[in-house]
Amino acid sequence: MTSSSPWIRRVALTPPSLKDNTADADRLVAALKKELATERVDIDLDLLAQLPAILRRNDFCARCSVFRDRGGWVLTGIDRSDHPRPAAGLAVDLGTSRVVLLLIDLADGRTLGEEAFDNPQLAFGPDVLARLHHAESPGGLKELKDLVIGGLNRAIDRLCRSAGIEPADVCAVSVAGNTSMTHLFLGLEPRWIIREPYIPVVNRPGVLKAAGLGINVSPFARVLVFPNIGSYFGGDLIAGILFSKLHQRNDPALLVDVGTNAEVVLGHKDWLIGCAGAAGPALEGGVARMGMMAGPGVVDRVAIDPETRRFDVHAIEEKPPTGICGSGVIDLAAQLFLAGMIDIRGKLVSAACGDHLKIIEGIRHLVVVPARQSATGQDLTFSQVELDSLVRSKAAMYTILETLTMTVGLNLSELGTVYVAGTFGCFINPRSAIAIGMLPDLPLDRYVPLGNSSLQGAALALTSAAAIDEIDCIRDRITYLELNVNPDFMNRFSAAKFIPHTDVGRFPSVKSQRKEPPHAGHAG
Amino acid sequence: MTSSSPWIRRVALTPPSLKDNTADADRLVAALKKELATERVDIDLDLLAQLPAILRRNDFCARCSVFRDRGGWVLTGIDRSDHPRPAAGLAVDLGTSRVVLLLIDLADGRTLGEEAFDNPQLAFGPDVLARLHHAESPGGLKELKDLVIGGLNRAIDRLCRSAGIEPADVCAVSVAGNTSMTHLFLGLEPRWIIREPYIPVVNRPGVLKAAGLGINVSPFARVLVFPNIGSYFGGDLIAGILFSKLHQRNDPALLVDVGTNAEVVLGHKDWLIGCAGAAGPALEGGVARMGMMAGPGVVDRVAIDPETRRFDVHAIEEKPPTGICGSGVIDLAAQLFLAGMIDIRGKLVSAACGDHLKIIEGIRHLVVVPARQSATGQDLTFSQVELDSLVRSKAAMYTILETLTMTVGLNLSELGTVYVAGTFGCFINPRSAIAIGMLPDLPLDRYVPLGNSSLQGAALALTSAAAIDEIDCIRDRITYLELNVNPDFMNRFSAAKFIPHTDVGRFPSVKSQRKEPPHAGHAG
Repeated sequence: MTSSSPWIRRVALTPPSLKDNTADADRLVAALKKELATERVDIDLDLLAQLPAILRRNDFCARCSVFRDRGGWVLTGIDRSDHPRPAAGLAVDLGTSRVVLLLIDLADGRTLGEEAFDNPQLAFGPDVLARLHHAESPGGLKELKDLVIGGLNRAIDRLCRSAGIEPADVCAVSVAGNTSMTHLFLGLEPRWIIREPYIPVVNRPGVLKAAGLGINVSPFARVLVFPNIGSYFGGDLIAGILFSKLHQRNDPALLVDVGTNAEVVLGHKDWLIGCAGAAGPALEGGVARMGMMAGPGVVDRVAIDPETRRFDVHAIEEKPPTGICGSGVIDLAAQLFLAGMIDIRGKLVSAACGDHLKIIEGIRHLVVVPARQSATGQDLTFSQVELDSLVRSKAAMYTILETLTMTVGLNLSELGTVYVAGTFGCFINPRSAIAIGMLPDLPLDRYVPLGNSSLQGAALALTSAAAIDEIDCIRDRITYLELNVNPDFMNRFSAAKFIPHTDVGRFPSVKSQRKEPPHAGHAG
Repeated sequence: MTSSSPWIRRVALTPPSLKDNTADADRLVAALKKELATERVDIDLDLLAQLPAILRRNDFCARCSVFRDRGGWVLTGIDRSDHPRPAAGLAVDLGTSRVVLLLIDLADGRTLGEEAFDNPQLAFGPDVLARLHHAESPGGLKELKDLVIGGLNRAIDRLCRSAGIEPADVCAVSVAGNTSMTHLFLGLEPRWIIREPYIPVVNRPGVLKAAGLGINVSPFARVLVFPNIGSYFGGDLIAGILFSKLHQRNDPALLVDVGTNAEVVLGHKDWLIGCAGAAGPALEGGVARMGMMAGPGVVDRVAIDPETRRFDVHAIEEKPPTGICGSGVIDLAAQLFLAGMIDIRGKLVSAACGDHLKIIEGIRHLVVVPARQSATGQDLTFSQVELDSLVRSKAAMYTILETLTMTVGLNLSELGTVYVAGTFGCFINPRSAIAIGMLPDLPLDRYVPLGNSSLQGAALALTSAAAIDEIDCIRDRITYLELNVNPDFMNRFSAAKFIPHTDVGRFPSVKSQRKEPPHAGHAG
């Protein structure tokens, strides 16, 4: 956060006279051009109409809020210089499941509040595909757009009320989301995103007017929409790179975002290469599908004593467990493997699971929390089907990392830092992810959790003019690796479908921790 | 008119593939950037939304209409490449009295039609001041804006219907008007235009969205609003300079626009200096006030036989006379002077006027058309009060020309060309204007009538990209001469209040034509 804001500028104009009869707008624009060292300052016509009164009310001194719009700048608000209204910015992480908002004081970069809401498009299905199909039905696209904009406007109201400001005080918004969410947000047809050759309507939406999008903030506010690389590599990733500063590093590092899709970027200041799992056939559904969203009562950490096989389950806010989130699932699988309760193929081992094993509708289930301890009064279980799916997902993730690093001639062990972004609220424990062979067996201190890097990247764009200018540079520098057409991918994927890997030598730290399962009683 | 249009571009895009999955918008923008040799091409979000369908309907070939927006370009429409809809431009002369529209085919610069209507703001008074005062009453500004926009929309409908196109086919508009009319058109408060130190809200409105202004053309159309120099030197003059090519000449020339105000520009390719009469106290009301607008039955030419003093009055379309327009007034005064019916102070000479003289309410009137020949059944007269006003106006005009040329060290006789713009439809006869000493006594072939140069300049902006780029250059190159603060102005003005001038030696051609009035019977 910077202390002197790039977006708030005070100007003291020379009042007009017979010798200097420059128009109000031209006078202000000339001063702002000088102040901002730019060739272009735009002012909306309706804001122009307010200039004469505002300038004369305060002896031609004014507090201007400005924003970057590609090469130039745009005036997003003007007020008297003494005792002006607050000027706020709003960063939005436009998640498939959850939309998170951060309200920022543009004058000093201070956080004024945070809000989140479930993406109301969930009514049409938890996964993106169902929504994109709904968008093709008559009126469907508008319905989906209106849902997310409506949710956003209600959240803005709540956020502003609790921060003691008006929505009209918000004059800059930045939005980071994946390509599909961004298209629905903008009301753009996603039809060709999901059909070969997978073409978005736009990759660089740029800076738009909030009013044109239906967002109830200042009528002069601008919305920076993070660009995407393609249909499966979105603005949320670009925001994540911006926040991690991967693009400024001297040595190569990896950024892993295990969201609805598994998206990965490798690089440093000279090059960036990225790929996304959803484009490949292996990761359909993704890791996220298995877990629910974070919230009170959601299991986010699991420990199993390898000797007693006693479960120690942690639920958020210590509430009775209601379900299990992504990081909880990875923890669970890792602990099951280390306690010898699943084998190297991820199959439940009857002899080791004991009472925890149940057959429901012919499918083997592991009871994670018994009915008497759960919030629902039902057993909280995890099925063999879900385990199989997790194994495919983790194999895909590892294969993506392996393929990406090998493509640039590096070894996974050469990675100095692995940034782990989590857009779920529950963050993956690298130790567990290593234990199941989802992430490479690097020293734990090389794993750096980023939190909601999409939101933080969006927030960075509201506190730094340099950051805004970096966004398009990052986008243009990324080489996108198409996994669909990579011949080695499927071979590597098959090898990675064991826990932790067919080549256990790659995971020395896991081997030492594991308790061998009993030899009898494997799953059938 | 250019044959290959700057605003219509055909692009043939490479259809997307798995190897080239650039987004639709980015693909189009890249092609247009290359085609237009520019760094910036903007596309409205709502137009962006139409791209996928339009591009796929015609195998990624498209006919694009584009427009210049400051440094860059903007897409104003896209259609299939084969059999597209017409793409039209609309040039508007936003006159105080009359609004004139020219519809242009953007593909070839051909004129598709012309329309005109009386400015509906005339309901609040024929002069600008009454309207500007009305703009300060509650709701008044909106009322005035709505009146002119409403009139424009109705005229656009008529014009398009007769040309066989739709208003939605119009994707570029250019508007030239004086500073006050431009402010009312944009809905900008003109309050400070008419109060010292006379400050407009904006001098460079630039390129705006037609939809934002309420103009019913294509929702993606752009409106180029000609810039003004100051409160009394408007975009109509800039359009006039653009059309006359004064700014490209090697030798100095003068552009005179005798509209509601008397506005004058002197210069050539290296410099331009301008001034406007309304800023000075002498020209209040202006020449225009005296005449009515051109139209059927309006007297536009007057001849008086110096021997018989018989009047030969020409009315437009040979209809029975209803009134007299600006050029008719100047003709009348010149002919009265040459026939010895007014003296060198502009006073009616009783002995020479004979039957033509009448006293109405104590004021001497000249009967121009007797009741039996007029359309109204009333005498069509011109009073001594109007003559006195005309003498002040012509004196002011001459003094402006004299002051302007002397300021740059030139003599009036050194002017190679004098462009005379007429925004009334009736054009001033230079011979008459010289006879009364309104324009300098130069050989008649140096006077070049420009017609409605405001409209023609606006039209030029729709047929030439180079012309658009020249507009701001012209504006920025003009030095504005403030007559209010010129110490010699009033002395020169007093000397010019005689017909043709105190120094008759300056008007050798007039002296020889004139019949001396009888020595007795001067006006009292």
